[in-house]
This record gives sequence, structure tokens and C-alpha cells, in this order.
Amino acid sequence: MAARPRQIPIASIRTPSASYSFTMRVRLPSVPGMFGLLAGTIGRAGGELGAIDLVSADRKSKVRDVTVSAADEAHAQRIIASVQGLPQFEVRNVSDRTFLLHLGGKISVENRARLKTRDDLSMAYTPGVARVSMAIHREPGAAWSLTMKGSTVAVVSDGTAVLGLGDIGPEAAMPVMEGKAMLFREFGGVNAFPICLATKDVGTIVETVAALAPGFGGINLEDISAPRCFDIERQLQARLDIPVFHDDQHGTAVVMLAALHNACKLLKRPLKQLKVVVSGVGAAGMACTKIMRRAGVRHIIGFDTHGALYRGRRERMNPSKEEYAALTNPRDYRGDIAGALKNADVFLGVSGPDTIKPAWLRRMAKRAMVFALANPTPEVAPEAIPSNVSVIATGRSDYPNQINNVLCFPGIFKGALSVHAREINEPMKLAAARAIASVVRGDELSTEYIIPSVFDRRVATLVAHAVAHAAVRSGVARRVPKSSGAIIADPE
Amino acid sequence: MAARPRQIPIASIRTPSASYSFTMRVRLPSVPGMFGLLAGTIGRAGGELGAIDLVSADRKSKVRDVTVSAADEAHAQRIIASVQGLPQFEVRNVSDRTFLLHLGGKISVENRARLKTRDDLSMAYTPGVARVSMAIHREPGAAWSLTMKGSTVAVVSDGTAVLGLGDIGPEAAMPVMEGKAMLFREFGGVNAFPICLATKDVGTIVETVAALAPGFGGINLEDISAPRCFDIERQLQARLDIPVFHDDQHGTAVVMLAALHNACKLLKRPLKQLKVVVSGVGAAGMACTKIMRRAGVRHIIGFDTHGALYRGRRERMNPSKEEYAALTNPRDYRGDIAGALKNADVFLGVSGPDTIKPAWLRRMAKRAMVFALANPTPEVAPEAIPSNVSVIATGRSDYPNQINNVLCFPGIFKGALSVHAREINEPMKLAAARAIASVVRGDELSTEYIIPSVFDRRVATLVAHAVAHAAVRSGVARRVPKSSGAIIADPE
Repeated sequence: MAARPRQIPIASIRTPSASYSFTMRVRLPSVPGMFGLLAGTIGRAGGELGAIDLVSADRKSKVRDVTVSAADEAHAQRIIASVQGLPQFEVRNVSDRTFLLHLGGKISVENRARLKTRDDLSMAYTPGVARVSMAIHREPGAAWSLTMKGSTVAVVSDGTAVLGLGDIGPEAAMPVMEGKAMLFREFGGVNAFPICLATKDVGTIVETVAALAPGFGGINLEDISAPRCFDIERQLQARLDIPVFHDDQHGTAVVMLAALHNACKLLKRPLKQLKVVVSGVGAAGMACTKIMRRAGVRHIIGFDTHGALYRGRRERMNPSKEEYAALTNPRDYRGDIAGALKNADVFLGVSGPDTIKPAWLRRMAKRAMVFALANPTPEVAPEAIPSNVSVIATGRSDYPNQINNVLCFPGIFKGALSVHAREINEPMKLAAARAIASVVRGDELSTEYIIPSVFDRRVATLVAHAVAHAAVRSGVARRVPKSSGAIIADPE
Repeated sequence: MAARPRQIPIASIRTPSASYSFTMRVRLPSVPGMFGLLAGTIGRAGGELGAIDLVSADRKSKVRDVTVSAADEAHAQRIIASVQGLPQFEVRNVSDRTFLLHLGGKISVENRARLKTRDDLSMAYTPGVARVSMAIHREPGAAWSLTMKGSTVAVVSDGTAVLGLGDIGPEAAMPVMEGKAMLFREFGGVNAFPICLATKDVGTIVETVAALAPGFGGINLEDISAPRCFDIERQLQARLDIPVFHDDQHGTAVVMLAALHNACKLLKRPLKQLKVVVSGVGAAGMACTKIMRRAGVRHIIGFDTHGALYRGRRERMNPSKEEYAALTNPRDYRGDIAGALKNADVFLGVSGPDTIKPAWLRRMAKRAMVFALANPTPEVAPEAIPSNVSVIATGRSDYPNQINNVLCFPGIFKGALSVHAREINEPMKLAAARAIASVVRGDELSTEYIIPSVFDRRVATLVAHAVAHAAVRSGVARRVPKSSGAIIADPE
């Protein structure tokens, strides 16, 4: 993959995007120049013209389907109104491409074998299936090879912290979990099935997931609010003998660490000497801090909306914040975040939009690094970041260096499943981060290319391979791959 | 479909079947007559030769893959031993076709939309998916059209009553539930996903299924032992606003009633006058009895291993047997099953193998009907049934008139989902039975053809249509199909 251009694009949240695209059916008079007038009207309203299809035509008029990308819903409405405002055009209907894509759901359950004859039926179902069931009854480990368990992950959410939307409930979480399942299939070749829970109670969630676990080879927890997510993950991992992985924590942490590795390599900075300021100590902040510490970072100070976390702080604490304070802030800094940023090497934002003033970043060390991961609006606009900051990463696809969990979870589960791992432990996460970082070769590294593209197909394969071997070395694999080369599922 | 031959085949449980087929890799000398010797050896051992493939050949020998159907595992071993016993042949390996079919599982989760570009990603996942989630958050009913909910069923088992194998546990139940999911896909076009539970506690099962329900449009309970299955179904249906359907009960009952309808039509017997003896009052026996009563049958006596169920019986009762006794046996018959069969019109067996003596059936009325549904070994061998019995049905595919749930569950859920039904109620079950029965035209009806083949593709479509309309008429539909013709999912 080629390095990205060095110049940071002056992107803005108002850039038209496919996620707000719509298809408008318009009748135009069959007169020269009419399509130009339509295209110009859409363009002047800020819309970006996509596919254009002819639906029907007669002597007097043509009907066309015109696909247009807008910046948001209000923008889409303005574009449509500007077309409707011209007497030459009749807007017949407007369909939203994103909604059309979701009709009937985004994933399906399909058969891997045919079922057309009585012989097919007698092998896949009764009476043949009884022999397979009895083989598993005698040796439960055979379920890994004789059922879908060995390639299947549950994507579990209670809908309490969905994207940046908050507690929107289990039904509303479904489109996100189906999307996650698509990413598992597309990038990891893993079956993932969404399970959205009608409960927010930690105990009930743990009981439910423990009860439904036998058919799954792993549990991906998703979009569960902090600090409940910590308890749920800990309790479930203690009860189950399959990986329980809260992606909002560990996926983010693994990809962030991969980017940090490469940024430090590029800037020739040892991790041990970094001074890091973390804004936000929720699920992602906690996990990023822990993985940085394990990777050797010593100086980390975390901030919540109330200020620095330090040993002995009394206000707005909870057990996970107590743990955070105990692990970090070695000199018990109690000042504000602007003060902490003085001479800091790394700012990591996993909080909310526009919480950091660009001027504060000017006090950071030379050749500093800023990871502003709040989505869709970062903690600080990349365009406003001062020049002493050399590397900028965000959670967005329209800036360089996107920190996107999809670089981690398909590969890390693929690797864990391939060796029937009991858990996804720290060595496996560190191996995943190194594997992701390794995709960008030393001669390709630049300030705008410290992390591979989400569409780089090498990533999941390398991550799976590294994670499987880390699982074997760390003793959580129940199956050792036959070769030291590629991990291949072998029929037992 | 042509009527089956009138003669009942002298089938036996020892007939070779694909469910016990294996593929043997054999090296034979390249000498004329060697393949004939091999085929003859297999034939004399009772094996049935299937596909034959040439793997490799040189001047001296040939290696062939020979597929053979056996009657059971011991029989397969005897066939293999008979080939190994001849010095001319070298058996290199033997692979079991049923086990090969199960490797890696029988179903997979696949994407319904492509995910190759950033535009794809921004519509199926972030940021576009947020708009879809918020639309559902505002209007939860939109989950039926904007997620997979509207076409997806959970196949839930605790592994306590799997086929005839008993309590074999959730992992061992997985191949059966995957097979069930295949049938849902193949015959109903429905997404079905297996959920095998690591608990047998009624309360925990109810809590678990209630918690995971939001993403599903229906719950198919499967292979849960009686009487627990009754409580679980009742409690879940009371809590959930989607259908909860225990297929072992209602699927069997619907298909049995369809067959009874046609048998009575053929034999010109009104249901109201039938005298029915039921052996087995578990899940299927209870449901068959209830649906027969609703269809108009008045005289039913049920038996468990302890004898007739009657009001006031004290031994080995439970609440569901109390209910059974209260609904049936109007004259409080307390004798044995042989006595009850005297002048009975219908014997329905949903119990265990070889529990009925053929001589007892000789006392039944003229032109009687026997439904011996125990699987794989019926209550009485069809070959031994006396000639006063006109219609015989079993659960097996190698006799005429197979009572197979697959005639019901794909269509009944397809129909229920199409109208977003809150439950599958009695009118919907009766409509399903009538629809199944209607597939066999009056002029096709014969004693060997009272129920359509499981591969008759008309069945699920007709059942779905009838069930959807019954749901609308009975007030449990949340969506009325646009036309009175075909039920078509319409994009909202």
C-alpha cells in the first residue's frame, strides 16, 4: 500500500459521505441542458453527484434516478428542496441508500451443505445426526470440529453505549451488531451472530451469556457502558472457558498500541520515556492505559471530567477509577489537563468532542503525538493542531492514521478460534498489536502512515497467525497448529 | 405427486442408509475381475455400493474411493472387515460421510450486502448505521424491517430430550439444532440460529431466552424434556411479544392432525365420532390430544407407562397429566391399553419402541387408523399390523405416510414472521394443519398417501399463507399483508 500524501486534508464533518446518500427519482423535460441544470443545482447545494440511471423516457420527458451524497440529513433535505424549487423538475420520490441497505437485515444464516434429497436429510438431520451428537456427548471437545462452535462468535450488547449514541436499547443496537458481524465475516472469515439483550443488570447479563455460550467459540462484548462492562467481562471470563473480549476496550487498545509502536519507531522515541496524558477513563481509556503500561510506558496521567486521577482522590470515584489511579500518575499530579500537557509526548483522547484547546497542545514536547479518538468529532480538530505535534491519529476515515477496531477483532478472534483458546490474554493482545504495526514497513512509515488501512487484507491473516502462536506459547490453546507456518483448521 | 404403491414395503431398521454411509479408500491389483470381487464382497456383507472414484492408478494397482451405505455402525465395521479379510485388497482409510458433512458446522452467517469499499463500510457500519439505530430507537417496531429480526428465529434447546437420545447436554445438541436451522433455511427461507443452553433450570432458561429475544422474530423451543417444556413455553409466551413455539409438541400435533384429516376424508369418518387411544402423554402426546380436541374429536383416552389417565388417579401424576386427565377419558376408563383399543378407531403412539402387540390392534374397529410415531422404532412394526387397520402412519421416511415436523415449522414461522405475529395461536395451528392436508388432492388420496412428502415445495408456501391470514383474523398480527393474495414483505 502506498503512503498517504503528507498534507493533512482540510476535511470537515460537513463533507458529503455515502452514509448520508440518497437516490432521488426526478422527471426532467426532454430539452437540452436540463440535466446540466439539475447537476448544477445539486452541486450548488453542496451535494455530490453519484450514479445516474435512466428509468424511462418519452418524447416530452425523462425520468432519472440520481444518487447524491450529502453531509447530513438536514443537508439532504436542503438539496432536495433546491431541486424541488425549480419548476422544470418533478421529484417523484427519494430513497435513502443507507436505509435501503438495511431492509431485511444485513446478515443471513445459510446452509453449508445441500439439503435436496432424502440422503442429504438423513446425514444432516435424522437419523444420521444422532451419531454425531453421541460422538460429542462422549467427547465434548469434538464440538469444536463437528459443529459451528469452532468458527463462531457471539456479538453481545445490552445497547447501553452504542457508538456515540448512548443508551438506545437492544433493538436499536441491532444494526450496529449486524454491521459488526459483517466485519467479522468479511475480514476474519468468522461466523458472528448478534445477541442484543433486554436487560441492563450485570448479574442477568452474566447469567444469560454464560447460559448461551456452549455453541460459541468466543464472546465479543460490544457497546456496554462503563464501569459495568468491566464487571461483566471479568465475571464472564472467570466462568467460561472461551474468550470473552470487550472490543471497545481491547480492540481500541490493541490498534492504538500498534499505531503508537510505529509512531515511536518513526520518531525514534523509546516507549519507556514517553509522558502520556489520557483524557477519558471509560472502557477505552482504561484498556489503552493498561496495554501501554504492559508495553513499557511508565508515565501516564489520566483525566475524567472532574480532573486528574490520583491516589486518594475522593470525588466521583468508582472501583475501576481507583484501580486506574493506583496504576498511574506516579507523582500524584493534581492539576488540570492543560498543565499536564506541558512537555508531554503523547496526548490520547478517548473522551468527547472538542474537549481540548489547540493552544494547550503547543506546550507539548517537540515532535509530539496526538491521538484524538472521539468519534465522529475528535477532541481537537486535526486542522487546528500546532506544528510541534508530528503525528496525528483519529478515529475517522477522512483523516490519515485511522484507529479502527476492525484492524484487530476479526484477526484476534480468528487466531483464538484456530487454537480453541480459553481466553484472549495479554500476550495475545500484544502480539496482535505488533502484527498490525508490522504491516507498515519501515521504509513506508511516515507521519501520515503509521497504521494500515482497514481494507488491507494482510492485517487479519497476520494478526490471526501471531495471536494463535501467542496463545500456544502462553498456555491457553487447547489445540496446537500442526505446522509452525499457516494455522489451518484440520479435520479431526 | 404420484400416489405411492399400495403395498407396504417390508422395510426393516437394518436397511442400509446414507446416514451410515462411509467412503473406503482401497488399493486393488490391476487385474481383471478385482473390482467385481470387491463389489461382491461388499454386497455379500449387506453393504450398498454408491459412488466409486478412481484416486490413482499405476501398472500394478489402482486406488479407488468406494462409498458404501450400511445399516448401522457395527454393520459398517463388518463390511470393512470383510474387505480387509481378502489378501488382494488394502484398505487405506475409511471416512464417515456423515461426520465429514459436519466438519466446521452445517450453517454459516453470511453478509447480505458487500463490504468492499469505504462507502460500503460507511453505510453498513459507522457512521451511516447510527441513523438507522436512531430510527429504531424512536420507533422500536422498525426493527422488524431494518434488522434481521423480521426473518430470524432462535432454535433453543437445553439438550435434555434430544431426538431419542435423552439428556445429552447442550454441546451434543448442537448438530441437531444446526440441522433444524438448515431445514428452516431450505424450506422456509427463514434465518434460524441454534442457541444451546448450559442450564436445565426452568427459571434460568426463561430468563435467558427472554433476555436474548429482542433480535429475534420468533423462538422455536426444541428437544426440551417434559413436563419442563410446558412451563418454559407458557412462561416465555406470557413474557414475550413474539411467537414461542415448542416444535416437539405443536409441530408434531399439526402434522398428525393434517394426516388425520385426510385419513378421515379418505375413510369417510367424521372426526367427532372417532374413538382415539393415545400412548404417551409427553410433549407430543399432550399437544396431539389438545389439537384433536380443538378439531372436534371427543373420545380420547391417554396412557402413560402406568396406565390410563383418569380424573382422580393418584400415582405418578404431575400438573400436566392432571390437566390431561381432566380434558379426556369422559367415562373414566381405568383398564389397560389392550382393553381400550377394543373398537377404537385411532391408535396414536408417541411413546417408545415395540410397546404395542399386533394382536391388540385386531380388536380395533374396521378400517381403523394407526399412527405409530416412535422413532426410529415404531410402537408396532407396520408389517405386523392386522388388516382391519386401513391407514398406517409412522415417523420414518422408509414407510408411507411419514409424520414429519418439517412439514409444519418452516411454513408456520414463515407465515407468523410475515405478519409480525405476537404468538402462534390455535387458529394458526389449525390453519397450518388444513393447509398441509390440502396439498394431497382428493383424487390423489389413498391409504399410502394421506400426507405430502417432506420435499413437496408447495407445503411451506401454503402453510405460510394460511397461517398469516389466520394470524390477521385472530388479531395477533401487527402487520396486515397488502394483498389478499401472496404475503410479500414490503419495505416500509
